[in-house]
This record gives sequence, C-alpha cells and structure tokens, in this order.
Amino acid sequence: MGRAHSNAYNQMPKFFYPPPAQPVKEIVCGRTESKVKEFSKQFGWNNVETDWKQMIKSDKIDVFDNCGPNFMHLEPNIQAAEEGIDIICEKPLARDLEEGRKIAKAIRKSGVKSLCAYNYRRVPAIQLAKRLIEEGYIGDIYHWRAVYLQDWIIDPDFPLVWRLQKDKAGSGPHGDLNAHIVDLSQYLLGDIDTVIGMEETFIKERPLPSGEGVGLGDHTSDEERKMGEVTVDDAVLFLAKFKNGALGSFEATRFANGRRNYNHFEINGSKGSIIFNLERMNELEFYSSEDPSFAQGFRTINVTEGNHPYVNKWWPAGHIIGWEHTFTHEIYDFFDAIANDKEIHPNFDDALKTQVVLERVKDSIDSKTWEKCE
Amino acid sequence: MGRAHSNAYNQMPKFFYPPPAQPVKEIVCGRTESKVKEFSKQFGWNNVETDWKQMIKSDKIDVFDNCGPNFMHLEPNIQAAEEGIDIICEKPLARDLEEGRKIAKAIRKSGVKSLCAYNYRRVPAIQLAKRLIEEGYIGDIYHWRAVYLQDWIIDPDFPLVWRLQKDKAGSGPHGDLNAHIVDLSQYLLGDIDTVIGMEETFIKERPLPSGEGVGLGDHTSDEERKMGEVTVDDAVLFLAKFKNGALGSFEATRFANGRRNYNHFEINGSKGSIIFNLERMNELEFYSSEDPSFAQGFRTINVTEGNHPYVNKWWPAGHIIGWEHTFTHEIYDFFDAIANDKEIHPNFDDALKTQVVLERVKDSIDSKTWEKCE
Amino acid sequence: MGRAHSNAYNQMPKFFYPPPAQPVKEIVCGRTESKVKEFSKQFGWNNVETDWKQMIKSDKIDVFDNCGPNFMHLEPNIQAAEEGIDIICEKPLARDLEEGRKIAKAIRKSGVKSLCAYNYRRVPAIQLAKRLIEEGYIGDIYHWRAVYLQDWIIDPDFPLVWRLQKDKAGSGPHGDLNAHIVDLSQYLLGDIDTVIGMEETFIKERPLPSGEGVGLGDHTSDEERKMGEVTVDDAVLFLAKFKNGALGSFEATRFANGRRNYNHFEINGSKGSIIFNLERMNELEFYSSEDPSFAQGFRTINVTEGNHPYVNKWWPAGHIIGWEHTFTHEIYDFFDAIANDKEIHPNFDDALKTQVVLERVKDSIDSKTWEKCE
Amino acid sequence: MGRAHSNAYNQMPKFFYPPPAQPVKEIVCGRTESKVKEFSKQFGWNNVETDWKQMIKSDKIDVFDNCGPNFMHLEPNIQAAEEGIDIICEKPLARDLEEGRKIAKAIRKSGVKSLCAYNYRRVPAIQLAKRLIEEGYIGDIYHWRAVYLQDWIIDPDFPLVWRLQKDKAGSGPHGDLNAHIVDLSQYLLGDIDTVIGMEETFIKERPLPSGEGVGLGDHTSDEERKMGEVTVDDAVLFLAKFKNGALGSFEATRFANGRRNYNHFEINGSKGSIIFNLERMNELEFYSSEDPSFAQGFRTINVTEGNHPYVNKWWPAGHIIGWEHTFTHEIYDFFDAIANDKEIHPNFDDALKTQVVLERVKDSIDSKTWEKCE
Repeated sequence: MGRAHSNAYNQMPKFFYPPPAQPVKEIVCGRTESKVKEFSKQFGWNNVETDWKQMIKSDKIDVFDNCGPNFMHLEPNIQAAEEGIDIICEKPLARDLEEGRKIAKAIRKSGVKSLCAYNYRRVPAIQLAKRLIEEGYIGDIYHWRAVYLQDWIIDPDFPLVWRLQKDKAGSGPHGDLNAHIVDLSQYLLGDIDTVIGMEETFIKERPLPSGEGVGLGDHTSDEERKMGEVTVDDAVLFLAKFKNGALGSFEATRFANGRRNYNHFEINGSKGSIIFNLERMNELEFYSSEDPSFAQGFRTINVTEGNHPYVNKWWPAGHIIGWEHTFTHEIYDFFDAIANDKEIHPNFDDALKTQVVLERVKDSIDSKTWEKCE
Repeated sequence: MGRAHSNAYNQMPKFFYPPPAQPVKEIVCGRTESKVKEFSKQFGWNNVETDWKQMIKSDKIDVFDNCGPNFMHLEPNIQAAEEGIDIICEKPLARDLEEGRKIAKAIRKSGVKSLCAYNYRRVPAIQLAKRLIEEGYIGDIYHWRAVYLQDWIIDPDFPLVWRLQKDKAGSGPHGDLNAHIVDLSQYLLGDIDTVIGMEETFIKERPLPSGEGVGLGDHTSDEERKMGEVTVDDAVLFLAKFKNGALGSFEATRFANGRRNYNHFEINGSKGSIIFNLERMNELEFYSSEDPSFAQGFRTINVTEGNHPYVNKWWPAGHIIGWEHTFTHEIYDFFDAIANDKEIHPNFDDALKTQVVLERVKDSIDSKTWEKCE
Repeated sequence: MGRAHSNAYNQMPKFFYPPPAQPVKEIVCGRTESKVKEFSKQFGWNNVETDWKQMIKSDKIDVFDNCGPNFMHLEPNIQAAEEGIDIICEKPLARDLEEGRKIAKAIRKSGVKSLCAYNYRRVPAIQLAKRLIEEGYIGDIYHWRAVYLQDWIIDPDFPLVWRLQKDKAGSGPHGDLNAHIVDLSQYLLGDIDTVIGMEETFIKERPLPSGEGVGLGDHTSDEERKMGEVTVDDAVLFLAKFKNGALGSFEATRFANGRRNYNHFEINGSKGSIIFNLERMNELEFYSSEDPSFAQGFRTINVTEGNHPYVNKWWPAGHIIGWEHTFTHEIYDFFDAIANDKEIHPNFDDALKTQVVLERVKDSIDSKTWEKCE
Repeated sequence: MGRAHSNAYNQMPKFFYPPPAQPVKEIVCGRTESKVKEFSKQFGWNNVETDWKQMIKSDKIDVFDNCGPNFMHLEPNIQAAEEGIDIICEKPLARDLEEGRKIAKAIRKSGVKSLCAYNYRRVPAIQLAKRLIEEGYIGDIYHWRAVYLQDWIIDPDFPLVWRLQKDKAGSGPHGDLNAHIVDLSQYLLGDIDTVIGMEETFIKERPLPSGEGVGLGDHTSDEERKMGEVTVDDAVLFLAKFKNGALGSFEATRFANGRRNYNHFEINGSKGSIIFNLERMNELEFYSSEDPSFAQGFRTINVTEGNHPYVNKWWPAGHIIGWEHTFTHEIYDFFDAIANDKEIHPNFDDALKTQVVLERVKDSIDSKTWEKCE
C-alpha cells in the first residue's frame, strides 16, 4: 500500500496538472530503518522515520497518509487529528467498531479533513454507475448482489501471515473484502438497515512464517514447520436489507479457486441494471428497459472515453488504466478538497458506517439472528 | 409444460432410437374441453379427458405425467400411485412440505416409479459438472453460489396470474426458481444442513386478469381494472450450510431487470471451480488449479461434442440444443428406468428433500434464525 | 441432414399450428435399402425408395427435399423441376457454378418454387439483424467481417471422407462454410462486386475410410491404412467489395483448433454495429452510436422474447432454441410460400449468386487477381 | 506520446528498482516554446529545446527518444545515429519503405542501439503468448487472424488532422494500426512472405482544423468550414501467407462503430489456439487440444500473477495494469539492453520488416495482385 500511495503522490501533479496543491513527500515512516530507507530512495521521499509519533509531531506535516496494517490505525489517526493534520487512512477504518468510533470521534472533534481509502469508489466505471443511478437510469432499486472472491490462501501450506491473525488484522476477508463491497453498496444505494451473516474458517491451522515478516505472501522454506491457529474467517456471507427497501447479498472469500480479485456486483432497478467487475474495471455493463423492446440487453460500456470521469486526465480515449490509478484519483480529490475546502467522501464517518455493518454482521453470526445496523 | 412434455414424448423415440419403450400418448386431460381437444389435435394425443380421476382410472394408462399447476399435485399424484401408475410430476413436488410428504409417502407405499421434473439435471453441461465433481476435478467443495433471476413481472401492470396467488402456486420464485437451484445444489453437493432466508414482495397489488385465465401472461385490456393482493414472494434469498461443510447462497427473484432466465451457479473447490448459466446452457465454465501455473483460467467448454452426455443422440458435434431437449432426456431416462427397472433421480423422495429446504427457508424467515433441514 | 429435415416436417405442424399446409412424409429415398428402411421407421415416413428417379416420378410427391451430398444436386433437382415439383435443396446449390446455373435455369423454366436450405437466415437473431439494418439502426454499412471456423479434421489421422474429395463435395470449407457466410452477407448487405482469395490444404494425404461409408466421421480401425489424396481446400480466405461500397472479409477453415462451429460475423455501419456468433445463436450483439455518449457499448440481446421472429411459436420467453429449429422455420416458410403463393428466399437464383461468388473466389486464386462476381 | 514516454522514464526506476541505468530527463524538444516549457514543467524535464538539431548535438544526450509525428522520423533518427546516440522511436519507423531503409541503414552503420516502440510486444499477455508458442503449446501454426478496429473518425465532421494527411502521416490506419498487428504477427509467427490488400477512404473530404493544430482531436467551431481532401486510407485489409505456411488476415480501420481500440488477434495451431484483445490486455485466451477431450475450451488467463512477465514489478497478484505500463516495460528493457549490452527487439531492422510488409500491401493494392515481401 505504501507503494500505491507513494506512486499516487508522484503521479497526481503530473496528470492532474496543475494540481490543486503540490504534494511534498516529506517523511516516510516504517518499522525497519533499512527497509524504509530503501523504500524512500526508491519512491522519492525527503526523509525517513521509524517512530510514527515523531513523524506526526513534525511541524512539516500537513497530511498524514496511514498505510499501516489495521492495528496501526487507532492511535496514529487520533494523534494526527489532535495535531490538526488532515488524514487519509487505508481501509478498513479499524479492527472493530469500537476502535472505529474512537477514530471518527477524534476527527469530528478536531475538524480535520479525513478520507478512508476505499479506492474503488474512484474507478471511473463506479463513478459512471453512480451517475446512472443518480440520473434515474436505474429507477427504484430492488437488488444489490455482490461478491468479492479471491483464492490466494487456498493452498493449505500458505503461511499464517498477519492477515490471518485476528489481533493484527481484526478479521479475514470480512474486513478486507466485504469492507470494500459494503462501502460501495452504501455509496450507491444508501444505508444498510439490517443484516444476518455466516462465516467459516476452512483451514484451521497453517504453518508459521519463518521470519518476522508480515508480508502478504512470505513463505517459509523450513522443512519442520511450526503450525499456528488461523484466528480469522476464511469466508463471510451475509444478507442485508437496505433502508430504501432493496435486498442485498454479500460474500467475501479467499477460497474461490480461479478468482484472483473478483470484486463483482450487480444492481437491479425498476428501469435498468448495472454490473461491475473489478477484474475488468475499465468496463461497466448497463441494461436499460427503455431500449426498444426487441433490442434490449446488457451493454458493455468501455469506460475509457473522454467524457468518463477522470479518463481525460490520462490518455487518449480507448486506452485502459490500471488498479493503481484509483489511488491517484483519490489523492487528487483529497488535495482538491483540502486546497479548496470541499467536502470529500468517504470520510471517517462514512467509513464508520461500513464498520457498523461489518460489526453487526459479526454480531449476527453470534446471535444467529438479524441485527440492526446502528 | 403440456407442450414441453408432449414434445418430449414425440421426440424421444425418434432420437433415442430404438427407445427403451415406445410412448403412446393415450389420454390428455385439461379443464376446458375445447382447449384440450385443440391441444390434442396439435400434439397428437389419442384421447382427451377433462376429469383427471377418469383418466387415472383408465386401464390404458401406465404412466401419469402431471403437468398441472402446483395445487393439482397432491390428489392426482396420490391417486395415480394407488392405481400403480408410474408418475412423472412437474416441479415443485407440492405447494408445501406437508403436501410433499403425503405424496412421497404414497409413492413409497405403492412402489411405483416416480420422477420429479427438475429438468435442468439433464442439461448436458450439468451432467458434465456432475462428472467433474465425481471424478475429483473440483476437489473438496467450499462454495456454492446460485441465483435464478428473471424479470417478467417487473412491470407493476403485469396482472395477478395464478403464479402470484399463494393458494394456487404455494409461493413465488421461491417454489418456482429456488426449487431448481436447490435441487441442483443437492444433486451436485449433497444435502443442505441449515438455512436462513429473507423475502420481499415489492409490488403488493396488481390488476386482476380480465378473464378466468391462469395463463402465464394474460393481460387485461380493461380500462378500469380491479386490483388484487399479491400473496406470494417476489424474491427470496437465503444462506445455507451443506452437510459437507460447504457454504451456499441462493437467490430467486422476478425483479432482476434484464435477466430473462438467468439460472446461474458457481462452485469453488480445493482443486477447481465450475460455472453454469442456463442462458448459455450448451456451455460450462471450468477452472482447474492443476493447469500450468502460468496458464490457468476459466475455460468455456462447448458441451456439444459426441463424448458429452446425450449429445450424440441429436446432431453432429458442434450444434447446440435448446431448452426443450432437457425434457426429452428426462422422458428417455424415465422410460429406460421403467422398461429396464433402473433407479432414477430425482424421484419424489429427492424432490421432498428440496421441499424440506424450501420450507425451512420459509420457517427461517418467520423465526428470524437458522433452521435445520429435517 | 435427412434427420434435421425429417424432424422439421414432424415439428412444423405442431409448433406452427395450424400449419399453412400439412406435410405428409410420403417417400424417403436413400442408397442402401436396409438403412433407409430403418431411417423411415425411426422418423416416420410412409414409404422408402432407393431410386430417386422413381421417387420423383411418383404422383404422390408435391415437394422434393434434396438432402443428398453435393454431387446429387444437379440431376435430381432438374428432373424434379421438370415434374413440376417444388424443391428445397441443401446448400450449396451445386458443386460448381456451371452446375448451379443449370439447376437455376431449370427452376426458372419450370416455374416451381425453390428454396436453398441456407438455414442460418432463419435464426431469430439473423432475422433481428436484418430488421435492425432495414430499419436504419446501423446506417450506411462500411464493413462486413465473417469467419466460419471449425476444427473437426485437424487430426491428420481423420480419414478421407466424401467431404474431402473434390468429385463428391466440389470443395472443402469453401463450399461448405464460406457458402453460409456469403449467403448471409448478401442477404444482409446486398451483392458482392469483386473478390480475391487464397486457399490452402494443410494436410495433403489422409487415411482412406475402411468401408464404403460417406459418413461425416467414419474412422477406420485398420492398422495398415491406405492413404489417399485430399483434393479439396482445408481453408479459404477472401476479401470482397460489395456493390454498396462496403468492404468484406471472409474466412472458412477446418483447422481452427478449439472452434467447433464458429460462424461469426460483425457488421459496422455509420450508426451502429452488429455481431453474431452461431455458437451463441440465441444472442445478438448490437451497438448504437445513438445511445447516450457516456453509456455506449455493445449490448447482448437475448433473442428469446415473444417479439422476436419465430420465438413465440416455441416456448415462453427466455427459453433458448437449438440448431435444429432453424430447419423448422425454413419448412414453415416454405410451406407457407407454397400454400399461399408467396415469394421465398433464398430461392435457387439467390443461391446461384452465392455460387457465383464462390466460383469467382476460386478463379481469383488461380488468376491471382481480383475477379468480378458476374 | 510524449506524455507516455515521459511517464515511462519517471516510473521505470521506481518499479524496476534498482534500474539498470538511471534515466535523466535532460532535454525535451517541441515546436512551440510555450507548450514545451509547460510540458517540461508538468513531467519534469531539466531543459527545453525547440530545435531538434540543437538537442541532438548536445553532449548531454545519450539516448534520443523520438515521439515526433511520422514525418519527423527520417532526419532526426539519422542524425542521432550519426552522433552515436541510442535511439528509441515511435512506430511506424517511417512514412514509407524508402525512408525506413535509410533510417535502418544509418543505424546499422553507426552501431547504436535502436528500438522501435511497438509497445504491445511488452504487454504481459503478449509475452505469455510468445512463451506458449515457443514452448510448443500451440504446435504448428495454421492461422493468424488479426484486426485493429477503431471508430474515432467515423463522424464525417471530424476534422482533417495530421493523421489524415498523407504528407504528414504517410498513411491512415495502415501505418498506424496495421503496423502494430504486422509487428505482432512477425514477432509471434515469423516473416510474412506474400500479401494482397485492399483499401478504402469512406469520407473523402473533411473540415479543416481551425488552427494550425496537429492534435489528435482538434475540432473547429467555425460555422463556415473550409473542407480539405482526406489523402490517407480509412481502412486497409489484406491477406498474407507466412514463410512457415500459415495463412494470415489483417484489417485496420477507423470506421468500426463501437470499437474503441480493438486490437484483436487469434492464432490457431495444431495443438492449441490463442486469442488476444487489447481492450482486455490483462487477459489471454488459450485453448489446448491436450486437455481432456470432455473438458476442452478456451480459457481466460488473468495475466496478473507473479509468474507472468513484468507483473511482479508492479502490484500484488490480481491487480491489473494499464496501457501506459507497456511503455515502462519498453524503457526498462531498452535501458537494460544499453547498460548491459544486450540485444533488444524490435530494433530498426525488425521495424523495417514491418515497413516492407506495409509497403508491399500498398503495392498489391496498386498492382491488384500478390506481392512478395522483400
């Protein structure tokens, strides 16, 4: 994530030129000095730091970009807010709702700008989906149907990295992947009212990583491995009812063989439907029941034209962008919001709403009944 | 359905030649004499009848094919069983579990052969899916993810046909569409253990049909329409846990704009995955994690080759079949089972298992908690 | 083909009920008495014959359906015409242009009705394409781009069946597959003006079939096979200019590994585009540049609705038909034309136009320059 | 193109870290001083220049990156070569074959490294295609079938920009788009032997741009437009025979409504097939006839895994890259070739081969017969 955000600071002022404000990559902070120095050299930071508290106290810092793992969100965010620093923080906002509430409260109190990096909101196709909904092309919405499917831990020998440990990650794909599709659903349809869910951990024990590494894919090569308990979910599914009456289904799993990064949703309304698939993020499928009755069908829009959001900042029409570009869009909008004092979403209050839903799903798994998202 | 089954009796002995037994279309029965006479002439039946009891008592009848609406399953099936007549019955088996149990009990007692016409089991692609699972290509199954989406009643002016009336249909898409995907899921993965569901009726009132018609799409042309209450669900979603540990999600709706007949499921296992879509029923998507690591992906199998189930009975390789052919496969297998005294599935006991799941989903909607499928 | 046509005669009066005229399957003719008797029993013909001349002289025959291989088109068609019998003949019309001209001339002279069984014209999606073009949805047409790809002889051990022998088949995929896409192109865009082509026979020799069989896929099991020369093309490609100024490309091959029956074309016009793929023959892709500029894309139309051509004769909306149904459509239209004295296309004059193009392509391969289609 | 290349110099050392050599963006050159200054500021160049001769003479220049329009390739490339400067040049190499030969000769004489920026060779999916072919997964190749379809000038009011003027662009989509697919075909299949083509200019006259602008999409707003003649092709199609016996078809057009940037090819061989589509450039379709006979089909490979070419330099597996990344790959390979004195392709001799084919196609259009590519 540090790479993706650093890249966004590099790219934003070049492609969104002239930028609303010029990012200066002043201090980069990490645990291991040698690594953070190397990273700083690679991506062009002015200074390095290994103590985040020092960084936040520095009077050179106007914006704090928190790419730390989930257990590093609470304290640093609150302290930055207290210092009056605007904050962009990786998703999910926190490991659990209680943490999330503390963070959001601190932001509200401080009055700083906040942005939670649910970057998929800034895929051009998602912006187009939002527009189609807002301009009435979909009509009243009946259904939201989303899955976020991956398969990177399907091998039982994949090691027990930090994302599989509850104290570090908070949860498994629930906080990692459901977080994204819950955020998108509430962005596009409005608030979720009630939920009920289920979860499973298919592989209960995994080999411990050989070193200290919290990297995503650190594999041990030790022959005699020590095993450790997987303390997060491998899959979480839930049903939801939105406040506007729409029905929702959500699923996040890391055990969908063949699905690399399949964030896919479908929306059905009284006048039309929308389908999005992150693996083909430069496309959006759209159905309109207002097309001639003999010529109706889902059309695949190449969201690569100059009249599509963000697109004309990049390349001539017809040329696709990649995953990384969503971060540049995010940074642009955040700097624009700061420089020109605009509202920006999802701020930490929006992110808190996602946190509420995630927590209530967890509650519903325990209570075995529907939970209200409040 | 009368058309589809009549056609199957016509086609089976020609394409599955020589047939295991020659169907003789002896008596066709319907409520309105003029209509049933016309139908008889059109599809070639020897005699017509308007009283099903008379038909069943006839000594010319060895097989009873019940294509009646759901409220006509209970009595006729039981009486036919008592007469020692083998029965094929349209799905779902009954309007509710209690009815289903009575029917299944009667069949068990009588010893006649029974087949519930869950025709999608006999799509060649589904047979191929079954083979892939049984031969270990998918491995241990983690996920079942199915939707059956239609949109034919999305217009609020669509009239209150029999399928929207609880006393006649039992339920809405739950019994009509979820029935299909529950049957397929239990066929491919084994029994469902527990469920929790939700339902919605989006359009509460609809215009009454002008005439007596129970046709699927009878529209009234009256300017002053009388309205009637929709007494079935418009959409039912549920989560499930299978006895083998797999997680399942199911959704049936008639409000998915743009989806004409989208019976779609995905199965993820430890070694591979499968995707089926009824709208492209001559295809099956298959992913194998045993392909070379740099060349893995979902492959689209054209299930139109001579070595695919049923296919070589029809046309040269590479030529697709349609929806109707599944009924011919069904009739062939049923006659083969009768003539050669073989087991056949889904018999009424299998269909009862689907009925149990459907009923427990309904129960869970009432109880707001998980229900065990027993 | 005998199966497909017999089936159409069986099905037409049931589904296009009441039929414009009732087909009576009076005489079926084949070379080997035992085989034709069996076939007659299977598909329900009143009488069998092994001498086509006897059949045509019979006064019970009003319609002659010629499903013979290409070398059996010339004489029987002419003789039937002379007897005043309406004729439907499998495509291509003849082995070469000279034969085609003789046949077409005989029909013109006799005044009988003729139909060349280019069945793909009667796929509902093709009819829809025709409508879109005629109603101006595509605008002026710039491009036609068609391929007909198969792979059933890609194995060098596949035997030298009749379709690989020039004296029996006339040509390889050129007459078999290009014939279809030339017919479709001239149906949809109008006449082709000039052409230039290339051809290749990749496998020059193949094992002789063990028996007399001219079946499509007769494989020998002899260990010591005799080899014979392949005397037809394995692939023919050509470029074309249509009289209306559109540019065309055509390709037919039996060496496209993985392509089972891929008859695929794309049309681009000033206002829109169309894509068809026979393997998904219940769909048509349509692009309109008149859609809102931010929401343009190829839409996939499920050509399975009641307002699509032929569809409402079959099943409720949303249920696909198969390859065989095109023959029933053809027979319906032919009987309708006969019974009600309507024009019907493609008659033998239309088929002759296709024959001209095929021949000029062959000429251009010899002359190595453009040939005019006249 | 200046943007795309500048971006590549910025990104390469960060993502291909440590870089084989550190690019220093020393001088950027353009015609209009104000514009080039602004550009320099935006993308971070040390100095600006408006006289390319001055730039090339500068002793600070080790690498010359020629992004100029086609008429600016001849002289600058030759002069740079004479100065001993390594050159990367945008495609096509030249406006015509004669120019191309002069450039290639100068490079050979000088001994500098050259790279023609056929960037699609460095799409990971193309690299994977190359690997599949080289490792024998496709077998002997029978067919190459490529189109490069766009629609950005389909509106007759689109103005007469430099790309539509022969003296500036050399040709239309032939040099612009066919150049790409010819390069790819010869990269993947080897040399083309003979060709025959056709061309068309559908819109013969267009409004002159209002200003001097050579921008891609400068539209005039003048009410009284002056019209000018379109002197390049709007579409060029050709057939080809490769030296290895494969048959090829090629088409480039800017009149394929709905096709934004559809660079699409299919390769069929004796053991498998490959399909590529630039609009989904993170995917490759692959068919293997060595899969089990009942489970064969085109599989869609997400070319986003760590074991795919270039991919692990960017983001975690499963995250797509965009069009721009191909330039970074190109710059990386070029700097690697320079720093470590490696061979690199396509050099100007490779690009000349493409130029030969393009020219022979033009010749064949004039001569109306096949031309040999030599």
